[in-house]
Amino acid sequence: MAVSYNALAQSLHTRSSCFIPIRYTKQRSRSNVVFASNDNKNIALQAKVDNLLDSIKWDDKGLAVAIAQNVDTGAVLMQGFVNREALSTTISSRKATFFSRSRSTLWTKGETSNNFINIRDVYIDCDRDSIIYLGTPDGPTCHTGEETCYYTSVFDQLNNDEASGNKLALTTLYSLESIISKRKEESTVPQEGKPSWTRRLLTDDALLCSKIREEADELCRTLEDNEEVSRTPSEMADVLYHAMVLLSKRDVKMEDVFAVLRKRFSQSGIEEKQNRTK
Amino acid sequence: MAVSYNALAQSLHTRSSCFIPIRYTKQRSRSNVVFASNDNKNIALQAKVDNLLDSIKWDDKGLAVAIAQNVDTGAVLMQGFVNREALSTTISSRKATFFSRSRSTLWTKGETSNNFINIRDVYIDCDRDSIIYLGTPDGPTCHTGEETCYYTSVFDQLNNDEASGNKLALTTLYSLESIISKRKEESTVPQEGKPSWTRRLLTDDALLCSKIREEADELCRTLEDNEEVSRTPSEMADVLYHAMVLLSKRDVKMEDVFAVLRKRFSQSGIEEKQNRTK
Repeated sequence: MAVSYNALAQSLHTRSSCFIPIRYTKQRSRSNVVFASNDNKNIALQAKVDNLLDSIKWDDKGLAVAIAQNVDTGAVLMQGFVNREALSTTISSRKATFFSRSRSTLWTKGETSNNFINIRDVYIDCDRDSIIYLGTPDGPTCHTGEETCYYTSVFDQLNNDEASGNKLALTTLYSLESIISKRKEESTVPQEGKPSWTRRLLTDDALLCSKIREEADELCRTLEDNEEVSRTPSEMADVLYHAMVLLSKRDVKMEDVFAVLRKRFSQSGIEEKQNRTK
Repeated sequence: MAVSYNALAQSLHTRSSCFIPIRYTKQRSRSNVVFASNDNKNIALQAKVDNLLDSIKWDDKGLAVAIAQNVDTGAVLMQGFVNREALSTTISSRKATFFSRSRSTLWTKGETSNNFINIRDVYIDCDRDSIIYLGTPDGPTCHTGEETCYYTSVFDQLNNDEASGNKLALTTLYSLESIISKRKEESTVPQEGKPSWTRRLLTDDALLCSKIREEADELCRTLEDNEEVSRTPSEMADVLYHAMVLLSKRDVKMEDVFAVLRKRFSQSGIEEKQNRTK
């Protein structure tokens, strides 16, 4: 397997511009990389990677746990295992790569589906035996087509809540997004009785926009009038909820918003954008 | 070890009100629970838990991976392993519990530090060998006092970026929160040259509040004027960023906002609250 340290070198702000093909031996060993170049910077980089790999507490099978997490949404996408080669390959290729225990081979998520997980950073835990791949997925991660592999709720199962079907492990923000999305689907069906507040907002743009402006104003007043601190998270929650109803109307996901923020502040940030437009 | 199915039964909306102490045998076995009551509902519930435990693909050591995730922030708090008893205990006690491979015992996160992870739900992955504990932590999860165990960035290490020190694995929203927080700390120190936009906002409440109102208005206009869809995530990003500067001024975290939202819609939701206040 030949991979390149070019992307890594670039991402680490070294000035290397040459590709350095490396070859993995089938036997795990410390010096698992053959250099095609004598570029000193890349040799130094490889030495650092080796040191880092040495510092991992591999288990008795030479493995550690690797958790792939969506950098924008925080969703845990999947979990696999890595050996030295898998982690080294992930670092150099910037594509989440694992070691298949059943097939005893490396595999890069997306090599068949094209749904790669593009690595933004890799984190090691305090015990140095567990790793997070923080990345942006090109598409659904699960082989079933689900966004993540975690869609079976134990408490739903114990509650015999079969009707709810698959339910992704959602954090608070995305649970709210999911609730709003359901209300949106339901809002096309005529309903008797008093409509829910979300339904009213979804079907009345003037009401929705007046509420967003009102809640933003109330958030500001918590600062301007130096209101009790607990008012601020409460008003911010109102801003978020009402704004998310608007996003739903426009078929925009919070994930899209975070992607904008990530791109903005990775281009040296909000500052740059704001100064440009002032 | 005696644990109770009472909390679980209540949470699953059964009407059981009696505690059912259960005793774990040291040998793993299917029938690892001794009932102190013949309550039919709880027997049925225990049978469901047994079925669920049977469905897990335990490895050759009887273990599966368990990942604890903060339900509000999405942060991966820690990762451990579970056996049948650990998972069963977590389900019944609603406190994240693991199996210590080094000590060969169950341990509940927080049993010495009091920083329990209170379980909101448990998810199983498509392969049924990996588990997410979705919960709210009572305090920092890592024994070092860090919020999570993942504070070592591989790319920082390779870049010799020692100056940055520990850096939690943060998703986009919390990276932004961290940037704003740093600007806030810096804003107390006199600075030469043109201040960053964030610094200007942090030191000028009138400017900050006028921007929040303006951005909320611009978000609304994307709907009212049916602007190109890509305008919506961009304007929402502006709303979020400016509102988060205000939160920073008030020492409020996005986590606090999500806690409000979670409590609000777990009390049957936004709807209830909104209808009450209209």
